[in-house]
Amino acid sequence: MRSFSELISLAKAKGPRKVVLVGSEDREGVKALKFAFDEGIAVPVFVGDEERTKEILDEEGLKGEVMGASSSEEACEKGIRLVNSGYADIVLKGLVKTSTLLKAVLNKEWGLRSGKILSHIVALEVPAIDRIVFVTDGGMVIRPDLPTKISIIENAVSFLKSLGYEKPKVALVAAVETVNEDMPETLEAAVISKMGQRGQIIDCEIDGPLGIDNALSSFAAEVKKVTGPVAGRADLLVVPDIASGNFLGKSAVYFAGGKIAGLILGASAPIVIVSRADSSPSKLASIALASYSLGEQ
Amino acid sequence: MRSFSELISLAKAKGPRKVVLVGSEDREGVKALKFAFDEGIAVPVFVGDEERTKEILDEEGLKGEVMGASSSEEACEKGIRLVNSGYADIVLKGLVKTSTLLKAVLNKEWGLRSGKILSHIVALEVPAIDRIVFVTDGGMVIRPDLPTKISIIENAVSFLKSLGYEKPKVALVAAVETVNEDMPETLEAAVISKMGQRGQIIDCEIDGPLGIDNALSSFAAEVKKVTGPVAGRADLLVVPDIASGNFLGKSAVYFAGGKIAGLILGASAPIVIVSRADSSPSKLASIALASYSLGEQ
Repeated sequence: MRSFSELISLAKAKGPRKVVLVGSEDREGVKALKFAFDEGIAVPVFVGDEERTKEILDEEGLKGEVMGASSSEEACEKGIRLVNSGYADIVLKGLVKTSTLLKAVLNKEWGLRSGKILSHIVALEVPAIDRIVFVTDGGMVIRPDLPTKISIIENAVSFLKSLGYEKPKVALVAAVETVNEDMPETLEAAVISKMGQRGQIIDCEIDGPLGIDNALSSFAAEVKKVTGPVAGRADLLVVPDIASGNFLGKSAVYFAGGKIAGLILGASAPIVIVSRADSSPSKLASIALASYSLGEQ
Repeated sequence: MRSFSELISLAKAKGPRKVVLVGSEDREGVKALKFAFDEGIAVPVFVGDEERTKEILDEEGLKGEVMGASSSEEACEKGIRLVNSGYADIVLKGLVKTSTLLKAVLNKEWGLRSGKILSHIVALEVPAIDRIVFVTDGGMVIRPDLPTKISIIENAVSFLKSLGYEKPKVALVAAVETVNEDMPETLEAAVISKMGQRGQIIDCEIDGPLGIDNALSSFAAEVKKVTGPVAGRADLLVVPDIASGNFLGKSAVYFAGGKIAGLILGASAPIVIVSRADSSPSKLASIALASYSLGEQ
């Protein structure tokens, strides 16, 4: 995938998906859905404070079904149940706490459990790279151990496949591209690479440790004599922990003036959490990512 | 400081410093010194394989004193002794291993020990920010504990003061701007902020935890209602560990198409280590940073 505009065209071509805004008394969420509706990517449903939501919808010039809820907990339950029942396809966080929303997602009776862990992925569009770069996990799991990291990779690979990547190129990134016993992430990267080579992790080309430079730039890979199927051509960067992944995502915006879109993976439906500080194109791209990943209707 | 070109002008105005290239049979190092010499920032001295160095100097069109050394160890000792004795001002790593060079730097008899720890700092020039942003430590200390982190901060603050920052604004960055007991770096940031407030860390405004966004962008700080003397205006980002700092530096180049310059601090003279993959302007900026930080001759 080359750019967010390509992503949005692809999502448009597949037709709109029903997106439920949970905690819908949220101007930013309504604005994001208006963009997505105007682009033909989303049909919105609103769950939250009915009166306040209708006011905002009027002001922003958007129409849609509004279901009242008198508390955050009620909004989360109603919203998640709509997705669980198949009435809606995608969850968009509005004015509710992330923790309240995720508690509802994980409800055993009416939640969106799929047996996988929940993990976060972002897509970055930056000036210096001619393709979208994905990063996981800079938003959900603080410091994954080996099995958790493998689950994070599996979530991301299966998501990339749903976007049309046949065999995504996955780089396990660290500060160096050599194994260094003082940097546990480099040891883990070596272990996970070997698991990929032995068929214990499938559907992707996976290699590490790689530096950001030699993962993304074939020039840097050549200069540093780093070879392999991923070097210089990575689609997905798997980071050691939440801080390093978060910094990569933020730097795409605040250093590069690029764009970022993000999703929570691992539930039975995509969950979109946009930040107040995200730009409108970022919010639109997040919804497009969720919508397009759901495939044919 | 607004840009690398401003930095280079400032360094030029103060006049050239003597830079010793250790392991001088190194075309990249010679090229970097040629730029710095042409700009009036450096007078080069070469220590290494004499014959090979002279060949490269001929080919690159640079002149300078060459001192022969028959091994890496000898080159490092001779080079570091030149700085220890005051004959040269700045160390530039050539074709020797970093570990061999640093062993010489730390030699008790003729090294460059100053009683401080060695730490790494980079300066980033990126399109989306109207000033140079410094990051420490993404190159030397793998995972600092609290006292080490404080030493890293002290090294950086004293360096920024030598560049003319009166009271640098220091952000202790993490994935979130709130204290989260599952993220030790946010607890440490809170502790270090308080130490700053109580005068236990001086010569800077220091605050954290801050996110990259609200540390650098006053718009993001406003949206997230993060206040304080540093929010939105940070000169220096202090990162949790080497991986997260390394990613920030790499992203400045590989996401943003920006420039990066770097130095090792904490010895009695600045030590410049440029990477093969660094661009020429990056190498020049690193030497300018070292040269300008030494002040009036």
